[in-house]
Amino acid sequence: MTASRTFASDNNAGVHPEVMAALAAANEGHVHAYGDDPYTQEAIGHFRRHFGEEVAVHFVFNGTGANVSALGALMRSYEACICPETAHINVDECGAFEHLVGGKLLTVPTSDGKLTAELVEASIHGVGVEHHIQPRVVSITQATEYGTVYTPHEIRAIAEAAHAHGLWLHMDGARIANATVSLGCSLREASLDAGVDVLSFGGTKNGILMGEAVVFADPTMAPGFKYVRKQSMQLASKMRFMAAQFTALLQDDLWWRNASHANAMAELLAQKMASVPGVEIFQKVQANEVFARMPAESIVPLQGVADFYLWDEPHSEVRWVTSWDTTESDVERFAAAALQLAHGV
Amino acid sequence: MTASRTFASDNNAGVHPEVMAALAAANEGHVHAYGDDPYTQEAIGHFRRHFGEEVAVHFVFNGTGANVSALGALMRSYEACICPETAHINVDECGAFEHLVGGKLLTVPTSDGKLTAELVEASIHGVGVEHHIQPRVVSITQATEYGTVYTPHEIRAIAEAAHAHGLWLHMDGARIANATVSLGCSLREASLDAGVDVLSFGGTKNGILMGEAVVFADPTMAPGFKYVRKQSMQLASKMRFMAAQFTALLQDDLWWRNASHANAMAELLAQKMASVPGVEIFQKVQANEVFARMPAESIVPLQGVADFYLWDEPHSEVRWVTSWDTTESDVERFAAAALQLAHGV
Amino acid sequence: MTASRTFASDNNAGVHPEVMAALAAANEGHVHAYGDDPYTQEAIGHFRRHFGEEVAVHFVFNGTGANVSALGALMRSYEACICPETAHINVDECGAFEHLVGGKLLTVPTSDGKLTAELVEASIHGVGVEHHIQPRVVSITQATEYGTVYTPHEIRAIAEAAHAHGLWLHMDGARIANATVSLGCSLREASLDAGVDVLSFGGTKNGILMGEAVVFADPTMAPGFKYVRKQSMQLASKMRFMAAQFTALLQDDLWWRNASHANAMAELLAQKMASVPGVEIFQKVQANEVFARMPAESIVPLQGVADFYLWDEPHSEVRWVTSWDTTESDVERFAAAALQLAHGV
Amino acid sequence: MTASRTFASDNNAGVHPEVMAALAAANEGHVHAYGDDPYTQEAIGHFRRHFGEEVAVHFVFNGTGANVSALGALMRSYEACICPETAHINVDECGAFEHLVGGKLLTVPTSDGKLTAELVEASIHGVGVEHHIQPRVVSITQATEYGTVYTPHEIRAIAEAAHAHGLWLHMDGARIANATVSLGCSLREASLDAGVDVLSFGGTKNGILMGEAVVFADPTMAPGFKYVRKQSMQLASKMRFMAAQFTALLQDDLWWRNASHANAMAELLAQKMASVPGVEIFQKVQANEVFARMPAESIVPLQGVADFYLWDEPHSEVRWVTSWDTTESDVERFAAAALQLAHGV
Repeated sequence: MTASRTFASDNNAGVHPEVMAALAAANEGHVHAYGDDPYTQEAIGHFRRHFGEEVAVHFVFNGTGANVSALGALMRSYEACICPETAHINVDECGAFEHLVGGKLLTVPTSDGKLTAELVEASIHGVGVEHHIQPRVVSITQATEYGTVYTPHEIRAIAEAAHAHGLWLHMDGARIANATVSLGCSLREASLDAGVDVLSFGGTKNGILMGEAVVFADPTMAPGFKYVRKQSMQLASKMRFMAAQFTALLQDDLWWRNASHANAMAELLAQKMASVPGVEIFQKVQANEVFARMPAESIVPLQGVADFYLWDEPHSEVRWVTSWDTTESDVERFAAAALQLAHGV
Repeated sequence: MTASRTFASDNNAGVHPEVMAALAAANEGHVHAYGDDPYTQEAIGHFRRHFGEEVAVHFVFNGTGANVSALGALMRSYEACICPETAHINVDECGAFEHLVGGKLLTVPTSDGKLTAELVEASIHGVGVEHHIQPRVVSITQATEYGTVYTPHEIRAIAEAAHAHGLWLHMDGARIANATVSLGCSLREASLDAGVDVLSFGGTKNGILMGEAVVFADPTMAPGFKYVRKQSMQLASKMRFMAAQFTALLQDDLWWRNASHANAMAELLAQKMASVPGVEIFQKVQANEVFARMPAESIVPLQGVADFYLWDEPHSEVRWVTSWDTTESDVERFAAAALQLAHGV
Repeated sequence: MTASRTFASDNNAGVHPEVMAALAAANEGHVHAYGDDPYTQEAIGHFRRHFGEEVAVHFVFNGTGANVSALGALMRSYEACICPETAHINVDECGAFEHLVGGKLLTVPTSDGKLTAELVEASIHGVGVEHHIQPRVVSITQATEYGTVYTPHEIRAIAEAAHAHGLWLHMDGARIANATVSLGCSLREASLDAGVDVLSFGGTKNGILMGEAVVFADPTMAPGFKYVRKQSMQLASKMRFMAAQFTALLQDDLWWRNASHANAMAELLAQKMASVPGVEIFQKVQANEVFARMPAESIVPLQGVADFYLWDEPHSEVRWVTSWDTTESDVERFAAAALQLAHGV
Repeated sequence: MTASRTFASDNNAGVHPEVMAALAAANEGHVHAYGDDPYTQEAIGHFRRHFGEEVAVHFVFNGTGANVSALGALMRSYEACICPETAHINVDECGAFEHLVGGKLLTVPTSDGKLTAELVEASIHGVGVEHHIQPRVVSITQATEYGTVYTPHEIRAIAEAAHAHGLWLHMDGARIANATVSLGCSLREASLDAGVDVLSFGGTKNGILMGEAVVFADPTMAPGFKYVRKQSMQLASKMRFMAAQFTALLQDDLWWRNASHANAMAELLAQKMASVPGVEIFQKVQANEVFARMPAESIVPLQGVADFYLWDEPHSEVRWVTSWDTTESDVERFAAAALQLAHGV
């Protein structure tokens, strides 16, 4: 099997050695299943150190599970969640939100994947009128599906708009580490401190094997979450192995090292590709993703060098994602090949 | 953290070293996410070797996920699944079936956790009448929640009853390995060959870290399964690590060694506990679980020796589960303590 | 088309002339749709006169709609409703509860269709444990599906058991009028005053054209009900015509006259049939239904005289239902035919 | 109570006398409940005369019930329905589609409420990819929520696009009669003959008391519909009274007379209002609805003359709806008042 690295997805990367070591270390004797074990308590402790002692933390299997169980605990079936049209919950989760929650996504077109307070305000209609589904949550993604990052100030404005209307603010933080590194702040400043009520904290894309966490700013906001998680089939039996991975990420700075490296590689890639004739980078590169337009005829040949996704075929838009394990030479080899293709060599 | 082993659950055990080694070996470079990778293909190959070249195999996160996504792909919301009252899908999955599938479980009281063809027949009512939910699937558990095992002959009779009425037969095989070892047959003889249409193949309770598989006898029976899995939030991104564990289990005989050992330990435990005054083992011990009645006042002290569950408090019934890593001395220490408690020492 | 009257169902009867007159009287000009009209206000006023000024009243299309929207407003998908095995929500609503609410019915076998406080207590398990669905509501039917009636004292005991565990008490009152007449009390004494929190108030079986009401003892218990009703597709646009029927029922004593007559006819029928050789009435006749065992070979011939349902074929049990329009001669003709069949004439 | 007529909604109108007479005529003796009665058979016969002998016809309570049960019978939870952003199923049904079907609406912005074949094509993405919900149905409204009407030619183009991708075409025909009259064709030409697979046939807005019908072009396309209807709580017990209303509508030309009158009144209203200074009619008036922009300060005073809805407050857009019972003098009085307001009298 191949050891080559692609730019297709940070899900294509493997697991950081420190995380593998943590799994091995947790594999000792018997502990209670389903989270009633010291590994889980330890991991929750690390989350509390980062996010505040009062937060409630629950581990789930994957990002869809985190998003939908978090929203399911906060919403009734007659309620709606406002999100950008590009949101993962809208386009990449095969309708899990609608099926599990029963409610509706009120989607908002954006150019860069980012909501604003004004867009939130404009999406609130029909409150109190039974014919219309009732807005209840706003969901934003940090970093966005376009690799852009919300500043704490921008989040605060959205949170204030949401809260003024009695709505919760959810953050899909599948790449919260990348966004935090990009902002140069703490995990908490990039999310809860800016007014986020519940965070889907991503682990899988940042070097762990499998697992995400749902972090509620206030444990009283979703008293039924544990039932929602179980009913949503997101409760792991051998929870210690999920928890141990998060301890590995959070106990020192592995979360930061992994994300920081991936972001640096994205920046390097963007810089090198920007000078390739015919390539236009059309979104700000603020995390570990680069979105570009490039000549249609070069796409397949370049995918042969290192795989990536054709994001929007009609517009010849592509996405390149870097990972904790992307190397400078991966970037250089790819950029050199692009340059050769551009010059018709 | 403690290294002691309990009799509470096979979910309390850790991961077999061969499985840990397989995870490490799979951690090499980039592969496509979501199952489009060689590790997944390899694991599917091992399933096909065991169950037949024609089967469709899909990996999911946990047992509830396997059961409910399998049933969800086969049923409409106005259809019902006939199962024993004791079925895991009925009592231990927090209503995941009802919420995800939208249908109803028609539950049948049994003394030993086992359905029969006659019980299935007697549960079929109101076919074709729109006021009544329509039976569509029969679900049995192998080994059952009472640690008993269906013979291939018994399964065949149920399958024939189900199929005669146009119903599918689902098997919750969370402990299919233990049942198979107990029967001394092949995995396939203990399930699909006896008429089972779809099998939830358990891995977690048999020494892996996390993961179950859904095995369809005929790939055409549930063409929408892949969408159901994704929508049910059971699609792992770094699928290779789930697949690699199944390869470890199935490529040689690790599945058999683990289950065989656990079964032997249950037999030893049953044998030793049967001679403890006041202890009555009230279910056949055919897999890795022992169900017993014992004096109420001895339960808490004995849990102090090694933890286990009080299964039915009013009847003073307890459950002891053995695992791939249970040792003879674990059993002896436990039985000796029980004997001491019985003698009031 | 035929004008004959059957004993098959009170749903087979037509509409009382006073109700038809009320429909005609409401057919005047324009009023706001969806309940914002004086007819609806008037009908609510009549409910408040009967049930108390503080109740919240909402009209829906049918009994299933009343039951399921009431329960849906009170429950989350991870919660369960305890009910008799014979409950209409369990056997006659094609899984609407499971599909709409997402939760589970915890069904209790009974001999007469009636729960007791003890049966409720015995059904409450696993509270606080995330693997188990959480009991949230108890549902009883007044009069029951076996034509038996709960006394206020019996209801009070169930309500106390339910409330002691933080559960709501729902009453399916598809035949609340028949039960109330039978008890010789007020509608309120037969339901809310005895501790019922929410009542499905039946109209259709008691002489109206179409419609049921959901009556909440306390308007604050289900603040989202109006959205649940709309989302459950139970909000009538020309609401005035639903409301006008309830005004006809409740403004004077039409509800009482209709139910009283139907009950009297059931009593007469039971009395006459009890003397037919081979006929055994096996449930108390307390409302407008008679349940009997009778010789299998007489059933089809007797259905030819006036239709009725074979309730339980293996046990040769039948159900006879009387209506507001059943006449004494209907009863006498039927009983005479039964007697002739019994004598082999 | 008032006999004044508004322009708020055709749901505010009462019931045509011929429909009331049909209800009275059906109120004779006992018939089987739930549709197994001669009235229902007769009504189905009338539908078959209009739509073809092969169609399957089912009655439901309301428009939301018709739309959602039709779609629910055709779709799985992982499938999507493409519709205009303005569709009733999207904005006016409180999420009933999402809750009952579990799937997603893929909404398309339009200027006039009408889809086109091109818009349908552009909405089909991610087919066969499990991350994305799978398009399964296209839904159009005839007449649209903007009072515009699809020609059979336009419908045919949409049907061809849908069918080419294996999608069904659903028509929300809440105002199918108004559209048909406007087109000057038959009901069938305005719907099924143009390629519609399933039609929600509206009755309530066209002069009946309560009821809609679901008409499947081919009875084999949704074999489970009867269960979906029951589970969706849309099965009326005293079905004869629903059926009798449709017989009244369809047996001669009442459906045409009512719709024709309403359309004529809308045309008259549009003509008169077009000459009021400051009023701009911004949608084609093709059925019984008029959409206009008018000076914000005149809206409330004009609502005092006859009520209507402010459709889009920021743009000062209003909706006027005419009904089977709107009179010329209603229109003249309203237009005269508008003129007076415009002249500041």
